[in-house]
Amino acid sequence: MLSVEEQLKEITRGADEVLREDEMLAKLKLGRPLRVKAGFDPTAPDLHLGHTVLINKMRQFQDLGHEVLFLIGDFTGMIGDPTGKSATRPPLTPSDVAENARTYREQIFKILDPERTQVMFNSSWMGKMSASDLIQLAARHTVARMLERDDFNKRYKTGQPIAIHEFLYPLVQGYDSVAMKADVELGGTDQKFNLLVGRQLQQAYGQEAQVVITMPLLEGLDGTQKMSKSLGNYIGIDEAPGEIFGKIMSISDDLMWRYFELLSFRPLAEIEGFKRRIGEGANPRDIKFLLGQELVARFHGQSAATAAQEEFVARFQKGATPDDMPEYELECADGAMALVLMLKETGLTSSTSEAIRMIQQGAVKVDGEKISDRDMVLAAGSVHVCQVGKRKFARITLKG
Amino acid sequence: MLSVEEQLKEITRGADEVLREDEMLAKLKLGRPLRVKAGFDPTAPDLHLGHTVLINKMRQFQDLGHEVLFLIGDFTGMIGDPTGKSATRPPLTPSDVAENARTYREQIFKILDPERTQVMFNSSWMGKMSASDLIQLAARHTVARMLERDDFNKRYKTGQPIAIHEFLYPLVQGYDSVAMKADVELGGTDQKFNLLVGRQLQQAYGQEAQVVITMPLLEGLDGTQKMSKSLGNYIGIDEAPGEIFGKIMSISDDLMWRYFELLSFRPLAEIEGFKRRIGEGANPRDIKFLLGQELVARFHGQSAATAAQEEFVARFQKGATPDDMPEYELECADGAMALVLMLKETGLTSSTSEAIRMIQQGAVKVDGEKISDRDMVLAAGSVHVCQVGKRKFARITLKG
Repeated sequence: MLSVEEQLKEITRGADEVLREDEMLAKLKLGRPLRVKAGFDPTAPDLHLGHTVLINKMRQFQDLGHEVLFLIGDFTGMIGDPTGKSATRPPLTPSDVAENARTYREQIFKILDPERTQVMFNSSWMGKMSASDLIQLAARHTVARMLERDDFNKRYKTGQPIAIHEFLYPLVQGYDSVAMKADVELGGTDQKFNLLVGRQLQQAYGQEAQVVITMPLLEGLDGTQKMSKSLGNYIGIDEAPGEIFGKIMSISDDLMWRYFELLSFRPLAEIEGFKRRIGEGANPRDIKFLLGQELVARFHGQSAATAAQEEFVARFQKGATPDDMPEYELECADGAMALVLMLKETGLTSSTSEAIRMIQQGAVKVDGEKISDRDMVLAAGSVHVCQVGKRKFARITLKG
Repeated sequence: MLSVEEQLKEITRGADEVLREDEMLAKLKLGRPLRVKAGFDPTAPDLHLGHTVLINKMRQFQDLGHEVLFLIGDFTGMIGDPTGKSATRPPLTPSDVAENARTYREQIFKILDPERTQVMFNSSWMGKMSASDLIQLAARHTVARMLERDDFNKRYKTGQPIAIHEFLYPLVQGYDSVAMKADVELGGTDQKFNLLVGRQLQQAYGQEAQVVITMPLLEGLDGTQKMSKSLGNYIGIDEAPGEIFGKIMSISDDLMWRYFELLSFRPLAEIEGFKRRIGEGANPRDIKFLLGQELVARFHGQSAATAAQEEFVARFQKGATPDDMPEYELECADGAMALVLMLKETGLTSSTSEAIRMIQQGAVKVDGEKISDRDMVLAAGSVHVCQVGKRKFARITLKG
């Protein structure tokens, strides 16, 4: 059993801010299971490792004996976009919400302990709220403070309209903390303003303010932009074991440490040990194997993790991928780049016509797969190991 | 029966703005009774002539065959001040509202035709509204437009807090027009912003926009500041016949024309005739009698009006109040002034000690009443005829 100070150290691991640490310590000392809230969008979930940064932190609280309140913010989702401006955001029906909640459960219970998780829906209290109650809630916050929120401020100053209901949504989100009697709320750094509204409203309603913990946004495979589906630089938690393992193996050594901090459940002391071993001459690739193993095992089990590594070794290492291959970053003009251009730009071939010839001769591999399509195009936001002939390799990051 | 153009002329009489006249004309041409809305505070009414400017306009619509919707805005009154800052605004109970509505009926039916008046309460639709409905309502308006309202703008710029629910109240008031299907809404010039929100919301909810008619704020007895209880320059509609008559007789000739325009039901043509008669040598006092008669008769019946005039004549004219007495305006230091000081400042007595002596001798009258209290104090915002001895008179306006 960790001391409360040691618990605090694990809780602050990887966190951007803990507001406030002294309050967190005091709550830990209460000796009862804390109610740890995190809110999620009610739309169809398709979680990637970026989302798991938050979920991992929830799991950490569970490991310390606390209760996770997994909130699905379905109330506003069922209202949809009342301005009618966004045709792509139709109101969710209760059966949409139920289906999405089912998918959430399927995905999050790969990480969270179902015994210590309550899945909640804010429609259960907000749906009963009257207009009069909402007016009283709105009286608890000022226009000026709401306009301090970065995005509102920018829109107001540049003359872009803010509909008045947008001022009500942070209040609804804050009121959720009141209704849920949250002791702690977790969220991304971009949610900090809203999480602080929760603190303020809890005090206005006579509760002790929740501790707010913000987690950083995880960088994607390119190591610079945040992980996102639309940028293509992500690892989905439902991806196949070989995909997850291969993508982890493609990241830079620097990014590996960041992923260890935010994605691994290994104690910090153990990770420090890995760094020391590399300083003493260990191969970073072997440490990366451990990260790949851990992540594949989390979503597919240990035997799938072992198999993924064996397959990876068979495909790449037996094909003699050098550990110190050159790295390139290429800018894509239209969100993608032709393989022949990549080969030319990185000097793997002297020209695109040589590249075409090499593909026709079966001498080109991408991520260990022999390529026969001379028109192959690769998406921006991805990282690939390209090989021409037996000895020419490059790790290429496509930016865009 | 007036033509629609003549009706429009009566409708625009005394109005500050009609938005828009072409729409008003089109609605008049529909040939059906229009639904004419005006909203009133749900607190205990104590109406003065200033309030009746609006009620008179409603009556005018009734005379033209339309239906008046007298709205008591009890929904927000029953919420009270949720910020808890104003201890003087406790929430109204339903029985307070019922009692205030009873008083309203008692007072307004001295002017309005009960057969063509519906008294409505916005709690009947707002009380059923859910938080979700209110959010959808709030989506129909923007923060920037709300901040254009003069008072909000001033408070925002000077850093005085605006609670977010204050942005919801104009929306509630505007939504009342939707729920009531109002064709026309009347209000003071200070309500223009809110009345326009009603126009906009009706369109957002698929209705034709109401015509907005703003009426000016009536000047009080001093002829400069708006009539208000707190300034003391008012005529309450529940005041005694002699009080109302005497106060009307105390106003300046200029103000008399303003009151004719906004308070009299006489046709404009007749009022023009009065002006001509004075130009031809008639005594303005006799025209003022007509105004005093009309207003007393409205609230107390014709016989009370006749009696009030007779009493006035007996008291003042037989006491030989000169028609051309001097007029004075005095500034009050603390919202009031001692009578002895008034007498000295206007030269009716040479000193305050002479004033005290004259009071002791029973030689001082104020508004025709003999004064025995040497410590008498008169409130700022009022106008009085003071008399010392048989021949010294002054009409004194107390400002402050």
